[in-house]
Amino acid sequence: MAAAAGLRVVELAGGVGGAKLAHGLQAQLGDRLSVVVNTGDDLERHGLLVCPDHDTVLYTLAGIDNREWGWGIAGETFAASEMLARYGEETWFRLGDRDLATHIVRTRRWRDGERMTTIALDLQAALGVAARILPMTDAPVRTRVRTDEGWLDFQTYFVGRHQEPEVSEVRFDGIGSATATPEVVAAFEAADAIIVAPSNPFVSVAPILAVPGIREAVDAARGRGVPVAAVSGIVGGRAIKGPADRMIASLAGEPPTAVAVARRYAGWVDLFVLDATDAELEGEVRALGFETLVTDTMMVGDAVRARLAGDVLEALAARRR
Amino acid sequence: MAAAAGLRVVELAGGVGGAKLAHGLQAQLGDRLSVVVNTGDDLERHGLLVCPDHDTVLYTLAGIDNREWGWGIAGETFAASEMLARYGEETWFRLGDRDLATHIVRTRRWRDGERMTTIALDLQAALGVAARILPMTDAPVRTRVRTDEGWLDFQTYFVGRHQEPEVSEVRFDGIGSATATPEVVAAFEAADAIIVAPSNPFVSVAPILAVPGIREAVDAARGRGVPVAAVSGIVGGRAIKGPADRMIASLAGEPPTAVAVARRYAGWVDLFVLDATDAELEGEVRALGFETLVTDTMMVGDAVRARLAGDVLEALAARRR
Repeated sequence: MAAAAGLRVVELAGGVGGAKLAHGLQAQLGDRLSVVVNTGDDLERHGLLVCPDHDTVLYTLAGIDNREWGWGIAGETFAASEMLARYGEETWFRLGDRDLATHIVRTRRWRDGERMTTIALDLQAALGVAARILPMTDAPVRTRVRTDEGWLDFQTYFVGRHQEPEVSEVRFDGIGSATATPEVVAAFEAADAIIVAPSNPFVSVAPILAVPGIREAVDAARGRGVPVAAVSGIVGGRAIKGPADRMIASLAGEPPTAVAVARRYAGWVDLFVLDATDAELEGEVRALGFETLVTDTMMVGDAVRARLAGDVLEALAARRR
Repeated sequence: MAAAAGLRVVELAGGVGGAKLAHGLQAQLGDRLSVVVNTGDDLERHGLLVCPDHDTVLYTLAGIDNREWGWGIAGETFAASEMLARYGEETWFRLGDRDLATHIVRTRRWRDGERMTTIALDLQAALGVAARILPMTDAPVRTRVRTDEGWLDFQTYFVGRHQEPEVSEVRFDGIGSATATPEVVAAFEAADAIIVAPSNPFVSVAPILAVPGIREAVDAARGRGVPVAAVSGIVGGRAIKGPADRMIASLAGEPPTAVAVARRYAGWVDLFVLDATDAELEGEVRALGFETLVTDTMMVGDAVRARLAGDVLEALAARRR
């Protein structure tokens, strides 16, 4: 573990799966971990700027995440939300009282013209987070999905419509005007390894790579011999969380397996991490040109998170030797 | 009471004293009451627009005010505020979770360009308030006080510095660009009587009268024979709440008595309401040209509020006969 623990690592992350792996990685790496987080699912609610993926990672790395619910803050209450409902506000996107404070501070500073990255780093410092959580860009990017109900904002689809409509197309509004931040570019430049979280390939990982400058930064790192690992978010033919399995079917037209995830990452990921449940798929994944690591990827507790992170880091360190 | 209960009344109000009297008046008058409320003590906290006097009246008329504390909402909690403090925000102006919802809704709509009056009326409707609470103006007006610590924003002085510094001057920034709203003008035009709450003459009542168009509307009403009553906020030589007694000393240079309050209102108020404690001052007040009503003005509960409101309305109705 000594070599692995010394690595400087960049993780590409969406929400819950990204947060859990980040938590395990932070336990191994501390401040040598940078998490580049999707901002395509950001939204405005009640005039406040909400960054669900960032905040899931933030609360998880700060150790204040609500393990019981799988979202939000431990001990969270909803007094403000109930009052917002009395005022006739739509509250299908539930914001807890403590969570609201995050959005209030962020929104004030953002309206004052500060960069999203600066604000995020200050929020993290205030909560004592060791790792750096970097928004993929400071520019507003909004993921939208085409369904039989028309184009929907991502959170309208994800939370409001419970991911029920079938998705036939994904786009990232604003991506053309976005750029990788200096902090993101510097993180890739300093990286010894890159890890793609078990997040949704279409709506968590794809928007990060679509930010002009990020794919180039990944390629430049690989050109220097920096290995890239990806952990499958599909286990046993199902998404651990969210609609990735249905999206593989509707967007890629293939069965929702770890192989289908690997196919999305062919050409820029070196090491693909499969759950032991899917060990029989290892040959198929190798045939796509990946090295493989088969291990238990279900991050059900702190020890498992840290162990999985350690396994992946170990494999990456071994690859560098 | 029949005649009195049929009156259409405009009350000029600051915070707590104005809210209590408004509550008594609403019990007598229902939707025939309009409360023109001071907005000079509005402030921005955490990027949110907070209107303390309006909201005190709002929560009181909605029956959700916190009687135990004398401010805020019954059953209020402070989870968001504690989180804001973790983020390094100054929280000397404490905002409860439910209260925050009010400011969040207001701020969103205000930033979208809506009028403060429209927003206020919608908040009131949502909480089922019978009376109309009208911001004195839609324009931003900010009361500032000069102290030996320099010019202070009103709430910095009032809450942040606990009203400790001596006030040598008061000004209302933005008042020159403010105008009386159509709703305020219409309320005065329809009024059968006007009542000045037992609020601070210098920082609650004066800013309302300083809004261009309001003093003219009061004068026009008086010209039609509409009587104006004022209730003393000084009882037994002390302010019921707040720094009015100290301001009378430092700004007017006279002892803080009900007579000093009456002197501020000479020339445009007809009926001055004194607490029974101050009965011996009745002659002095009459000598200033007022009619007088001496009664118990300490609004310690619903019944007393309604009784005081009834007494004042009765006296005003009698004056009209």
